[in-house]
Amino acid sequence: MPTSLVVVGSIAFDTLETPSGHADDELGGSATYFSHSASYLAPKVRLVGVVGKDFPKRHIEEFEERGIDVAGIRVVPNGKTFRWHGRYDRKDLDNAQTVSIELNVFGKFAPKIPRGFQNAGYVFLANGSPQTQRTVLDQIEKPKFVLADTMNFWIETEHKALLELLPEVDGLILNNAELLQLSAQPNVVAGARWALAQGPKVVIVKKGEHGAMLFTGEEFFAVPSYPLERIVDPTGAGDSFAGGFMGHLARAGAVTFDEMKRALVHGTVMASFTVEDFGLRRLIGLKSEEIERRVSEFVRMITVDLGTVSVR
Amino acid sequence: MPTSLVVVGSIAFDTLETPSGHADDELGGSATYFSHSASYLAPKVRLVGVVGKDFPKRHIEEFEERGIDVAGIRVVPNGKTFRWHGRYDRKDLDNAQTVSIELNVFGKFAPKIPRGFQNAGYVFLANGSPQTQRTVLDQIEKPKFVLADTMNFWIETEHKALLELLPEVDGLILNNAELLQLSAQPNVVAGARWALAQGPKVVIVKKGEHGAMLFTGEEFFAVPSYPLERIVDPTGAGDSFAGGFMGHLARAGAVTFDEMKRALVHGTVMASFTVEDFGLRRLIGLKSEEIERRVSEFVRMITVDLGTVSVR
Repeated sequence: MPTSLVVVGSIAFDTLETPSGHADDELGGSATYFSHSASYLAPKVRLVGVVGKDFPKRHIEEFEERGIDVAGIRVVPNGKTFRWHGRYDRKDLDNAQTVSIELNVFGKFAPKIPRGFQNAGYVFLANGSPQTQRTVLDQIEKPKFVLADTMNFWIETEHKALLELLPEVDGLILNNAELLQLSAQPNVVAGARWALAQGPKVVIVKKGEHGAMLFTGEEFFAVPSYPLERIVDPTGAGDSFAGGFMGHLARAGAVTFDEMKRALVHGTVMASFTVEDFGLRRLIGLKSEEIERRVSEFVRMITVDLGTVSVR
Repeated sequence: MPTSLVVVGSIAFDTLETPSGHADDELGGSATYFSHSASYLAPKVRLVGVVGKDFPKRHIEEFEERGIDVAGIRVVPNGKTFRWHGRYDRKDLDNAQTVSIELNVFGKFAPKIPRGFQNAGYVFLANGSPQTQRTVLDQIEKPKFVLADTMNFWIETEHKALLELLPEVDGLILNNAELLQLSAQPNVVAGARWALAQGPKVVIVKKGEHGAMLFTGEEFFAVPSYPLERIVDPTGAGDSFAGGFMGHLARAGAVTFDEMKRALVHGTVMASFTVEDFGLRRLIGLKSEEIERRVSEFVRMITVDLGTVSVR
């Protein structure tokens, strides 16, 4: 199925502390947020990840209820699932502080793409070592569009491997601070131009509460974030964003600039749902009508027509 | 003339240090940036400010060449013009550090609105003491739309006077950090709602490189900033933005939500020109065609249509 969407990344249990409260053992992980988010849009989402024997069957069933193919989830019999404990400061909801991290089975994650996943049209390489991300590409047959995420840790520790990965992917998605760090440029526009010169045809910059930007060699598009009066838990916003973006592209079946613009809108809306509650609570069980309504509302919020005035 | 636009604020000489270089004795000040910016859009801009005898006739002529009414500029015979020395860090072009400040004649600025200015339809109270801003309102006959700017200094030192001013103005414009400080709310959306409850019908939030937001009781609109690869000098961006905003409203002659959206676009574009060079160098001598072209280009950059896809 050429329009299937494969995601490779983490599945985790999160302990979350935000200004709105506290949550323990929340289902989390980049591939989890991504696949649930994308499942509302993409024809078929296939998940590749690893969990321990402590991972409840209930969460596997939740994936399946959303039509997500779980054949790529490996369960390590003697292992424990990846755990992350994060904390957000009231003044900076866009950046989590890691209180503790237990990589557990994710520490030795060597993704094996099931045979039935190898003809995926769309691939999301969630945040991970660029070398691991590269091994995924070697197992996929001629994908239509590959998007890679990364983060400051890999920019610092595997800079060379990351630079070598860039020509192999179609799109790079990262946040604005990471782009400045990776590019050593003074601003996001210059940073995006630098990144495009390394190979990707598209660079997507996530700016949290300040929205997102899309750069290609020729074109530019930007959106604000969806305005929310209360953000309960920012965890997973970036992966939900990527899920909405890739989910839309897989659904559209074409990677034109117009579809990427629409994809950016869908990413923004999916992320806005995620942050309204802890973990995946808001995302799981969302109704299609809620998504459609918010997409329309958001497009209305960012649309302006110039009318007939003229400059003096 | 009911569509005339009066601005009351500072006229200054600036010493500017930015990552792009250094400039001495640049013409500056909030009312200067505002009036030059608005002059490209508004039918008639009238400036109220104060300078010393050191203020060159050349700058007065520059105002006049743009059709700006300078009858409200008072020249203090034995005084010196306001001077500001600002520095920008490479990592934070949105916030200037004040190296030194000499208020000079601006320290005792008690704006006197000339009789011919008193029937202004549109009024911009540039950043200043809320008490001084209030004295301006007392001298204007039934304006159509009054927009007030403020800053952290007044929020800290004249909090009560500022809160008392808010019910007297139609719009409040400030940056995101200032809005959080003023409102003591956790985010901009909640902060804007708080501010609207104090009286203004519109709150405009300037976010520098992250664009701008417009809130009314019922509606919301947001734009990113115009993407620039090189920002030479951020000084005056906010006042140029306000000039584009109010200039458009005065030209439109109607304060509808649609016109305010267009005004936000024009503010964004005018600010984008200002930051391309030191001081007012780029703004003065701008061509109407350049503005029209960038406005169209910018609207294209932020426009998306949803096409015919649907949520699964």
